[in-house]
Parts: sequence; structure tokens; C-alpha cells
Amino acid sequence: MQVGWIGLGVMGSSMVGHLLRAGHCVTVHTRTRSKAEPLLGLGAVLADSARDASEGAEIVCSMVGLPSEIEAVHLGEFGTLSASHPAPVLIDFSTAPAELARRIAVEARKRHVLALDAPVSGGDVGARNATLSIMVGGDESAVATALPIFNAVGKKVVHQGSAGTGQSTKAVNQILVAASCVGMAEALLFAQRSGLDLVKVIETVGAGAAGSWTLSNLAPRVLRGDESPGFQVNHLVKDLEIVMEEAHRMGSVLEATALAHRLYKALQASGGGEKGTQAICPFLAKGALGTIPIIHNP
Amino acid sequence: MQVGWIGLGVMGSSMVGHLLRAGHCVTVHTRTRSKAEPLLGLGAVLADSARDASEGAEIVCSMVGLPSEIEAVHLGEFGTLSASHPAPVLIDFSTAPAELARRIAVEARKRHVLALDAPVSGGDVGARNATLSIMVGGDESAVATALPIFNAVGKKVVHQGSAGTGQSTKAVNQILVAASCVGMAEALLFAQRSGLDLVKVIETVGAGAAGSWTLSNLAPRVLRGDESPGFQVNHLVKDLEIVMEEAHRMGSVLEATALAHRLYKALQASGGGEKGTQAICPFLAKGALGTIPIIHNP
Repeated sequence: MQVGWIGLGVMGSSMVGHLLRAGHCVTVHTRTRSKAEPLLGLGAVLADSARDASEGAEIVCSMVGLPSEIEAVHLGEFGTLSASHPAPVLIDFSTAPAELARRIAVEARKRHVLALDAPVSGGDVGARNATLSIMVGGDESAVATALPIFNAVGKKVVHQGSAGTGQSTKAVNQILVAASCVGMAEALLFAQRSGLDLVKVIETVGAGAAGSWTLSNLAPRVLRGDESPGFQVNHLVKDLEIVMEEAHRMGSVLEATALAHRLYKALQASGGGEKGTQAICPFLAKGALGTIPIIHNP
Repeated sequence: MQVGWIGLGVMGSSMVGHLLRAGHCVTVHTRTRSKAEPLLGLGAVLADSARDASEGAEIVCSMVGLPSEIEAVHLGEFGTLSASHPAPVLIDFSTAPAELARRIAVEARKRHVLALDAPVSGGDVGARNATLSIMVGGDESAVATALPIFNAVGKKVVHQGSAGTGQSTKAVNQILVAASCVGMAEALLFAQRSGLDLVKVIETVGAGAAGSWTLSNLAPRVLRGDESPGFQVNHLVKDLEIVMEEAHRMGSVLEATALAHRLYKALQASGGGEKGTQAICPFLAKGALGTIPIIHNP
């Protein structure tokens, strides 16, 4: 297919690589031209704007950072929808508020474009190995058109419903991930202070009602002192920002998510933004140790 | 074996039944005699006090409610350790502070008794089916002596370490369970408000990094409107009370656990104490709905 692509961060670059290797023709736009270099070697073509990337393409995709950037890329003066012949299907792989996804879908329709919100989970590693899970919202026929693209970059594609439902599903995912990480952090902190054998306790409780992906996959990293990112703190903070805004819009009070957001923002502020989400464990342990005396035998 | 047993609540009654059917001779003590009736029919003998249940037995066990009751049962004037020939091994299956378990172990040693703390997970159903998981703290040789008892009531027995480590492991378990339930509640609340297909979203996010035992096992019950207890809110509140006291003693701030404790206490206060822990989902949904207007299209 003739594909336009905007955004060549860690995720986007890997994803475009897969598209090129799968035989698609990709025209890329990025603010930082140096990021495009390796992909030009694989056959990608450079476009001067999001509008140019969309012009005449069969499908145009974005994978950028902030909601304001997504808005500019699609709805802005030089955005994809401003092309004289915009690509008839638009996919936003970024994580964004469902409200923005619905707004893009409405604007797109005015240009006879079908827009899909398709946030992913699986992180850097998933992008590199083309094993992303893709949560899709939008028109059914557009999903069918987009399948060759989805299949080139991901392993699991689930169409959740109308425009915005992909983003809402991603938000649900991040609410669960955040609660799970903070729960693990407090559990490990308590276990350590109690003098437990951490390997044994994780194995014991992980086999029952306390078990989770987080405990099975991230707790062992914590024990090894491995803070490298499967998923970056910076990204979780950004995603939780979106969740909290959406929740506020819906009039929902999500106290546990708000707490997780606050704790992760504190970790980010302390310089931990590029660490993996499991870094919340040593951060909480250090924080408490630094401010409150430990009394082992009161 | 000649077994003394104190406490015939839902858990204790099921457990004694298994011991009797496994051929053990059990002398039971309970404050509410009527609860002993069915077990007397199976061959149990009634004792007037915890002391009498312990007198001359090979092993004495307790499964009672509050820490103050556990203390009275073992350390009180008519407690197990006041017997002239106390059972040489003592098992407390109740959930209690590690600090109390260590104190009982110290007092027991003065009477040449080895004490084990052996809290369980698996709830009413686990007790009924003898599939409890048992987290054991205390002397290794006492664990060996107690194995026939453990094997009669449970499926999985893990010796965590010295006295108190069984209780600390149970606390770690409950920290994770509480965080997981509250996370699920906020995720489902958000999903519902977003108009998502709840079955689909649980399946999608449950297969990845957001997956947990709670999401796989309790979320489907929430969707069916099933609030029946696998594990009662009353029990989780009691356990979290113990966790928070222990954390305070250790100088640890567990913010997420404190929040879960508060939310579950509110559910209990609203009359939900005998419901299952998953009842936190409709409770939070109703709570937010009752106090804050929902704005779908701001």
C-alpha cells in the first residue's frame, strides 16, 4: 500500500521499518530529519509536512507524543486532513484522549476520510518485534482496509467499537497497570521490611489470588535491581495524565489512579522518567527510608 | 494425631471436618456451642476452654477472628499455654500481626512449645474443599510435625521462615489483593462510563500487562452482578487493619493500601460487609454517580 507516516520516535521508527520490509511504500514526515535517515536507506521517502505525507496516499498513520501534537498533525493548517486528496483512511497509533479521537473522526468525515484510533500496548520491545497489541476504535470498513498495516506491526488486533473506544480501552489498560505496579511496590516494600525471603514470597503469593502479570514479570526485575524500561515512566505519566483528564470530563473520581499518577510524577521529577515502570519499587522504598525512621522493635 | 482445636467459624468448622475424616482425634473449644454440634456427630469431643483443648494433645490449633481473641486463646489465663501439659506444637491459622505471632512463639518456648503462624488463603471455598494455601512461619521441626494437619486442610504449604513470616507473607498477599481489586473497580468504572463493551475490554487488556487473577476471576462476576463472597469484605477490612498497624510499626507509608482500606471500610459501613471483595466495583460506581453529575458531552 501507499502509506503516509508521521512521527519517528522509538515506536514509530520500528513500525515504519516493519511496513517497509512488508513491501509497503512509505512517505514519512518527522520534525527531526536525522531520525528518518535509517528508514530512507530502506526505501522510505521524506515529506515536508503531515499534509504532504497524506496527499494521494491510501492510508496515513501517526505515532506522535502529546495530544496537542496529534491535533496539529491531523487538524492543523498543514495537517493530514488539509491535503487536496487526503488518504481515505487515517490511523492514529498514539495514546490520546478518546474525546480527541472522536473529534478527529468527525472532522475526517467532513473530508470523506475514515479515522481510526489505534493505541498500542507492548512498548518498545513490542514495536521492535512487531508483537504490539492494538486496540482499535472506528469504522468497521476502515479497520478492514487497515488490516495489512496492523498485521505488519502488531500481533493482536481487537476492534473495540466506534471512534474513541480504542483510546478508552488503552486508558482502562493503563489504570490497571498503574494500580498493579503501585500495589507491587507497596507489597515488596512491606515484604522487605518484614525480613521475608522475597523470591519465596513472590512465588507463594503470585500463584494465587494476588497473582498478576506485573508480579510475575516485573517483580523479578526489581529483585535483580534491573530498572531498564519495558515501558517508560515518562510514557505512563503521560498516559495517566490523559486518563485523569478523561475521568474528570466524565465526572468520575479515580482515587487510586490519581494516587498512582502522583507517585509516578514524583518518580519522574526525581530523574526517573526514562526508567521502567518497576522503578517505582526502589523509589518508594528510598522515599520512605529517607523521611521516616524505621523502628524494627518498638 | 490427638488434636486440640479452638474456633469454629466458617473456616474452622470446615477444617476440623477434614481432620476428623482424615482419622485425627479432635477436641474442640468454641464460644458458641451450637457450632460444634455437627462436628460432635463426626466424632469430635468438646472442651470447656482453650487450655482443656491443649491439655495432653499432640498439637493444638486455632482459627479465630481478632488479634485480641488469638492472644486470649493462647496467652490468656485459660489459654493453651496455661495447660499443665500443653500440646508441644501450636498452630495459629488465623490472620494476625507478625508481631503477635512472634510474641506467642517466645511465650510458647518458655513452656517448651513450638508455635507456628500459618495463615491461609483460599477463603471459605478453599476451607470447604481442603485446597487452602498455607503460609507458615516458625520452627522447621514443628513444621514437619504439623504436616499431616496441613495436608488434611490445604493443598499448598510453604514454609517462609522464622516465627511471624507466615503472617508477613499473608499481609503481602492482602496488599496485592486490595490494590488489584481497587484497580479493577476503577478500570471497570472508567470502561462503563466510556461506553465500552465490558466483556471485550476485559478480554483484551487481561491478556497483556494489565492481566491479573482478579481481572480474570472477579471481573466476570461483577459483569454478572454476582456479589457473593469468594472472600468477604469484612475479612479483607480486618486483614488490612492488621497490615496498616504493622506498616505503622515498621515506619512504612503504604498510601495505596491505606486508600484501599478506607474504600473497603466505606463499603462495609454501607452494609456490604458480607459481600465478596468484588462488590467494591458497583460500590464505587454508585458512590460517584450519587455525588457527582455525569457529563457526557462537556
